[in-house]
Amino acid sequence: MEYDEPLFFRVMQYAADADRDVVDMVSGNPDWEPPAALREGLREYADASTDEFQYPPSEGLRELREEIAERRNVDVEQVVVTNGAGEANYLAMARALERDAGDEVILTDPVYPYYPGKTTLLGGRSKLVPTERDGSLDPAKVRDVAGDDTACIVVNTPNNPTGAVYGRETMEELVEIAEKHDALLVADEVYDHFDFSGRFESALTIDSDHRIVTTAYSKSMAITGYRVGYAVFPESLVQAAKTRHMLVNVATSRPAQQAVLHALRNTHADYYEETREMLRARIDAFTDALDAAGAEYSRPDGAFYVMARFEEFPGTLDNVYTLIDEAGVAGMPGEAFGESREEWIRFALVTPRAEEAAARLADYF
Amino acid sequence: MEYDEPLFFRVMQYAADADRDVVDMVSGNPDWEPPAALREGLREYADASTDEFQYPPSEGLRELREEIAERRNVDVEQVVVTNGAGEANYLAMARALERDAGDEVILTDPVYPYYPGKTTLLGGRSKLVPTERDGSLDPAKVRDVAGDDTACIVVNTPNNPTGAVYGRETMEELVEIAEKHDALLVADEVYDHFDFSGRFESALTIDSDHRIVTTAYSKSMAITGYRVGYAVFPESLVQAAKTRHMLVNVATSRPAQQAVLHALRNTHADYYEETREMLRARIDAFTDALDAAGAEYSRPDGAFYVMARFEEFPGTLDNVYTLIDEAGVAGMPGEAFGESREEWIRFALVTPRAEEAAARLADYF
Repeated sequence: MEYDEPLFFRVMQYAADADRDVVDMVSGNPDWEPPAALREGLREYADASTDEFQYPPSEGLRELREEIAERRNVDVEQVVVTNGAGEANYLAMARALERDAGDEVILTDPVYPYYPGKTTLLGGRSKLVPTERDGSLDPAKVRDVAGDDTACIVVNTPNNPTGAVYGRETMEELVEIAEKHDALLVADEVYDHFDFSGRFESALTIDSDHRIVTTAYSKSMAITGYRVGYAVFPESLVQAAKTRHMLVNVATSRPAQQAVLHALRNTHADYYEETREMLRARIDAFTDALDAAGAEYSRPDGAFYVMARFEEFPGTLDNVYTLIDEAGVAGMPGEAFGESREEWIRFALVTPRAEEAAARLADYF
Repeated sequence: MEYDEPLFFRVMQYAADADRDVVDMVSGNPDWEPPAALREGLREYADASTDEFQYPPSEGLRELREEIAERRNVDVEQVVVTNGAGEANYLAMARALERDAGDEVILTDPVYPYYPGKTTLLGGRSKLVPTERDGSLDPAKVRDVAGDDTACIVVNTPNNPTGAVYGRETMEELVEIAEKHDALLVADEVYDHFDFSGRFESALTIDSDHRIVTTAYSKSMAITGYRVGYAVFPESLVQAAKTRHMLVNVATSRPAQQAVLHALRNTHADYYEETREMLRARIDAFTDALDAAGAEYSRPDGAFYVMARFEEFPGTLDNVYTLIDEAGVAGMPGEAFGESREEWIRFALVTPRAEEAAARLADYF
């Protein structure tokens, strides 16, 4: 298994170099507009006084942390503004692994490839727990493998790549398992604004000293390049996380923080609902065409990916290249996400041409 | 010794809460204007297309890395754009410590407090080598303490807090010591645009697989909050550093990278020379007044700090508070920078009121 990004780039490059028109459904880069207030915030900040160009507080702009704390109903001191969800997960997993409470990190299979990468970087060992065919996670399987060595359990809900949304009972059980083994549950909720099931509930609503929630504005505001995210830590863990954040990054980039702050304050709920509406339409069109292609797939309850499985056409990198050349559609090989989805290919619904892409797939198969 | 930033904040807060007018010379936050092209770059970027708001390449925007490579006469593949010099140093020191080539990090005393902090975070042990009274570093003293356990030597030139500029011979000797013990020399050159001596030469001009150069635009463009820096690694070390950068931060924030790229391309050398002129005038005024106060000090050859020593008035936090209350001048206690400057107080020349501050000191002592 390789880290996500380089393989992304390799596949996207192959698609760009192809001799034909290709619908790019490789990366998780939104193709829609950020909130208007985001651009406005950046414009205003460009004229700010010189002192607003200097170090923000290490843990994040005070006003941004206050907005977050109020919206998430947590104490402002628990909030650390990070360089995207990527750094938030790094801080959370580091906290789990530096507590002398084991070196094992339980992850799900399929897995977002950054998690095992971070685990290795931080000196931990990954243990993969297979999810069900529909993407749901059976906590009993986590319970079976958890033990004294378990330092951390990382889940992503709504899930990339399966589109599953873990129910409240699942999350409560995971927290309980973490508590039992003195481990930390890290809930990466970066797709929290993309719940189509109505069942998503943030793990912040489960009170525990063994639960960390991470997220970012990358997807919800369509700004993956801005790198503004945050983690909410229990009080007992937050100080060490702030110290690591300071020693690694000093602070999160201020222009991006200022733009996000302005957007957060001045964006109506309609913006997020309209994005969901557009994605629902893309999901409908894409899965209808997958039906026509005779493919197996799960309709996503959340996030914006569809995994599909075509008869006798496993999700290898070679087959992904074949689809680019012969069908004109680029996805991500399932083998990039672990063993359990080697038969599958992931398609990101980040193009208005999702329906066309599915029609091409139907023609090809 | 505490980490820099929190103590900064504590002293600045004390100064802000004082019942009198206080000249703030605590932090290294420039008070002058960034290049006009920087604001311009941010304004232009606010209107960029949606895809320019998404992930930049993990190692940095290609155009920015190319600009850097050309200016620094290095291969573009050696350049990693980081979240400020802070992350650049973290990546460099991590690379040194994860090579199974020892766990000892040689630092100078006085020391920039982030270095020992990063050393501890990365599982290393700091060994401090005292510098001379004028701030210069005698490589023989480094040679004396270096050994099989030495993984890394970190120096900052031009130096914060002493204002020393290490000559080329010193740097060559340090590289040679690093090579001898299979260690890495990390040259943090974040003040490279603030050389008043004409003697500064980048360690990039010394060819070695054991030398890493780190720097940032934080000081040279007066944008400490933007968090755009970079490291230049030898070819043999760069891939692992890129992987760590990706796993920790995914990428450096794009609005800040775009603004810096535009500023880099459209800022004339005059901008930097005018800043140096202004700082030279501040140094003159401040040191003249220190003479009048009967203080000992070194006139900085580089960077923008003056360390001063007043008879029977050691550089403790308490004495710094006393100066705020009774003289109306705020500096940083020398004890924050290690043992060798406990008698001293550091004053940052980041205010047009440097002369006034020195006059107040003269009155007080």
